[in-house]
Amino acid sequence: MNYAAIYHRPESEYAFLLDKETMHIRIRTAKDDIRKVEIVYGDPYAIRSLNSNWYLQKVPMKKGLSTDVYDYWTISIKESKHRVAYGFYLTDNEGEEILYNDQGIKTSYSQEYLKNENNYFRMPFFQEIDMFKAPQWVRNTVWYQIFPERFANGNPKLNPEGTKEWDSTVHPGRQDFYGGDLQGVLDHLDHLVDLGVNGIYFNPIFKAPSNHKYDTEDYFEIDPHFGDKKLFKKLVDEAHKRGIKVMLDAVFNHIGDQSPQWQDVIKNGKNSKYANWFHINKFPVSYTPTDNFEFSNDATYETFDYTPHMPKLNTANPEVQEYLLSIATYWIKEFDIDAWRLDVANEIDHHFWRRFHDATTALKPDFYILGEIWHTSQPWLQGDQFTGVMNYAYTEAIKEHFLTHEIDALEMKNKLNQQLMLYNDQADSMMFNVLDSHDTARIKTLAHNDMELVKQIFAFTFVQPGTPSIYYGTEYGMTGENDPDDRKPMVWDEKFQDHDMYQFMQRLIEIRKQIANELNVKDLVWNVTKNGLIKLSYNNIHAVFNTTETTVQLTVATPLISNLYENQQLMPKGFILYKN
Amino acid sequence: MNYAAIYHRPESEYAFLLDKETMHIRIRTAKDDIRKVEIVYGDPYAIRSLNSNWYLQKVPMKKGLSTDVYDYWTISIKESKHRVAYGFYLTDNEGEEILYNDQGIKTSYSQEYLKNENNYFRMPFFQEIDMFKAPQWVRNTVWYQIFPERFANGNPKLNPEGTKEWDSTVHPGRQDFYGGDLQGVLDHLDHLVDLGVNGIYFNPIFKAPSNHKYDTEDYFEIDPHFGDKKLFKKLVDEAHKRGIKVMLDAVFNHIGDQSPQWQDVIKNGKNSKYANWFHINKFPVSYTPTDNFEFSNDATYETFDYTPHMPKLNTANPEVQEYLLSIATYWIKEFDIDAWRLDVANEIDHHFWRRFHDATTALKPDFYILGEIWHTSQPWLQGDQFTGVMNYAYTEAIKEHFLTHEIDALEMKNKLNQQLMLYNDQADSMMFNVLDSHDTARIKTLAHNDMELVKQIFAFTFVQPGTPSIYYGTEYGMTGENDPDDRKPMVWDEKFQDHDMYQFMQRLIEIRKQIANELNVKDLVWNVTKNGLIKLSYNNIHAVFNTTETTVQLTVATPLISNLYENQQLMPKGFILYKN
Repeated sequence: MNYAAIYHRPESEYAFLLDKETMHIRIRTAKDDIRKVEIVYGDPYAIRSLNSNWYLQKVPMKKGLSTDVYDYWTISIKESKHRVAYGFYLTDNEGEEILYNDQGIKTSYSQEYLKNENNYFRMPFFQEIDMFKAPQWVRNTVWYQIFPERFANGNPKLNPEGTKEWDSTVHPGRQDFYGGDLQGVLDHLDHLVDLGVNGIYFNPIFKAPSNHKYDTEDYFEIDPHFGDKKLFKKLVDEAHKRGIKVMLDAVFNHIGDQSPQWQDVIKNGKNSKYANWFHINKFPVSYTPTDNFEFSNDATYETFDYTPHMPKLNTANPEVQEYLLSIATYWIKEFDIDAWRLDVANEIDHHFWRRFHDATTALKPDFYILGEIWHTSQPWLQGDQFTGVMNYAYTEAIKEHFLTHEIDALEMKNKLNQQLMLYNDQADSMMFNVLDSHDTARIKTLAHNDMELVKQIFAFTFVQPGTPSIYYGTEYGMTGENDPDDRKPMVWDEKFQDHDMYQFMQRLIEIRKQIANELNVKDLVWNVTKNGLIKLSYNNIHAVFNTTETTVQLTVATPLISNLYENQQLMPKGFILYKN
Repeated sequence: MNYAAIYHRPESEYAFLLDKETMHIRIRTAKDDIRKVEIVYGDPYAIRSLNSNWYLQKVPMKKGLSTDVYDYWTISIKESKHRVAYGFYLTDNEGEEILYNDQGIKTSYSQEYLKNENNYFRMPFFQEIDMFKAPQWVRNTVWYQIFPERFANGNPKLNPEGTKEWDSTVHPGRQDFYGGDLQGVLDHLDHLVDLGVNGIYFNPIFKAPSNHKYDTEDYFEIDPHFGDKKLFKKLVDEAHKRGIKVMLDAVFNHIGDQSPQWQDVIKNGKNSKYANWFHINKFPVSYTPTDNFEFSNDATYETFDYTPHMPKLNTANPEVQEYLLSIATYWIKEFDIDAWRLDVANEIDHHFWRRFHDATTALKPDFYILGEIWHTSQPWLQGDQFTGVMNYAYTEAIKEHFLTHEIDALEMKNKLNQQLMLYNDQADSMMFNVLDSHDTARIKTLAHNDMELVKQIFAFTFVQPGTPSIYYGTEYGMTGENDPDDRKPMVWDEKFQDHDMYQFMQRLIEIRKQIANELNVKDLVWNVTKNGLIKLSYNNIHAVFNTTETTVQLTVATPLISNLYENQQLMPKGFILYKN
């Protein structure tokens, strides 16, 4: 038995509450090493106080997801006293049985040892207040990401100086403006309703000099080229009337260099009342304003990346905390937004994010807090900080298989399972699954304009746990290389719109919303078949994808949605989604 | 290579700040499987923005502690931008090299892959505010635990009715009173100074009917049989004058059934203003007052264990939180206490403990928060809740070797290392290492009155990371079976005192305080020699213990302290502690 591979961690993604009565448990073993895993569990006090012998009652666990290296075993349990001690019995293929508990691995033990509750793993009490909470509405949401400067120009009077003509075929420059604004979004809300999406993720809309607005000048003002607060309030209200939730982008890691706070530091140096709002190594701060982002290693102050335009905020300073929390709560209280997406969330301290979590969920218990983190995000997803993160690590693995074929179907499945097993089931269901965004090339471009492939990869992403997001224009087949080419003006000219793709996305979104509640990690079963098909199931929901180069014979019940499936033939790049 | 054994977890005991400039990193591999571990690390942004190639610069890690199953490798690193991406290269005995990073294990990779900062593990920013803080004074403290009812009777006028005569040789009954009080402690402070201890841990002193006072009636009053607030204030002041810190016992998981809050629930049922202060399943609460603790499975309300005398508090209720926090801060603000020991800490929610941490450390940044937890305590020791826990799991392993010989020296070392590797280095240094307490039999009794063995096990415990505690009377060789026999009245009659033991403890405490700063986990090296000696070293500090049955020849420099070491012979049960 590979002892060294066996892993469990109390109060983590290996042991968490699914609801206030149910605890979910995972244990990891080396791939194909263990034949049987059983659990014993019960109230730790019942052994001494009630002569309970729960520690002898072995209950089998289910073999769940696997990776190239590991098998994961799971079980959901209840305990009426809401306090649990538990241990695992593992049996390998040779019949060796060991006990694995809070003391490690035991190959022999006395009855006295088994009766000592202190030897077991513990969930000391089922604390609902500490439980990871997954808002139901997020599970049922399909997001639509809007880069406001490029979605629609509804009020040309607000155009910045030098605004270019709206043209969805151009390659925008880094500094270009096209006049997109909030009136444009309002004008097209019914387009979103027709498409079926029910959440908008807005890139930043607060006052800032750039077209992307990640260099915030004033967090309490709508950018004047986008509109004003009255208009934004109307937009949120109209969205809500249509069942659409609204998520804004909070850029709290750094502020724009044009902000009054940073300008005050430049002017007054160490005497500035904002001197402690930043990470300043030396006064006076050296700073050369330029039009372009420039990279500098001259660290009189800390910045995002090496961009002098974005001085890093000192979120350990209580004044900064109060300031940022006042922003976070203002837009909820006054405008009723439903979610914050947190830019560069990993570079801000956990202490602040806990305050942020408490302040926002106090106003709206089902508020969605989405962090931009590109790497493993366990420290933020314990229930006290974020609800989800931008799930690039997950969708990258999908792209590596479907688009570039760098990895085969089995490797992709392994990578996806590895990601799923990093987090508890609720967090997995709250992840923001983006195939493309303002920070990446567009999928159609990555797929070399192969729309069958685009449909297949979207369908696959839409049957994953986690909440999917569509980048504006995807529904009409927009293309784009990396930033800034991925930020082209939205295609509103019907003759450039891909109407077949639109209808496909409409149907896919409709189906996704129907099945969203079924897509639970604990129910997920993969089957990469001998002929190379990828099948995944959640109870009676099934999806099959053909990523091979040959057509495969396949008989299924009536599909809910499919592509390239005819006469019981699933063609390359085809898929079927069905119930039975 | 045993891939499945390789483990690292960002922002955990595997990756943490030692100070605001230094990050400490551990990685785990299968025992004796890996020949070499190297790390690459640097500023994630420097790859793209400054063309840095840190990802090619391999730095060897040190092979640190081992268990029966694992080797741990460590390194401390600095990065001027305070943001780090990092990955590991592992080479096994056959020369196979793999890369292990945030994506898992890679056996092959392109230069492009290596240049992508998103593939690496991350410490996104060195956040001092999130760092685990280990108060310097705790490192230098040797604790002395006082069970107030049994330490000294300084004011017979406060004796409860039926107080028995002070007699250190009796076996106390569960309900007996002996009249110990705070005046008694005050009278004997100079005894503690003479002994050399510099921290007192008091079992509960608040108003409560029992002799142990874990059934609190009023958290804002000193038990009238112990004294009053004026006296307690004087006691703290006098202790502080002598360089002695004061820790009180906070029993917040449950309240006593005689408390006005619970009495109000009994009287007013669901109309009580305290109805939501508890976990009540059904009104009216059924309750039969008895003099003895009784076990009951009749759950009209939740209790500690099955004891109806101790109704569990609902710490998710903000009113209860405010109440308990007002207690926690009151005794700091008004009486200047230095630490809280938290009874049944694991059964209270993390949300509350975070508030508790913030409220107490806001008043005293170097406040010590000690949780009573008997099992793995990672969820509480991340820097946001506790400073340490009662380290029973650690001292149990010591006892299993030194006292009962259930495990041999190597097994003990493995178990101790396993415990040390559960927590970051600072937390390890803050653990409360108790060999015995009011909840266990006394060491001398467990050692069958063998004082050489008692000295050896105390010496061993005093050279461990973590802050040691002496249970009152140990210095005079007191005995006692499990509770209530471990709570005998303190031996003040000189003719019953073990003066040899006293002098030994005096010297041991003195040495411990001298070397405390050196006892760092990252420097710990074990050597269980062929002839069975246990040697442990921290740089130039060394300690050798003979737990075998034969005398061993050994030449060392002048010992700082030793026992059963003469003419270069280390006898069974002997030890030497020396510097070189």
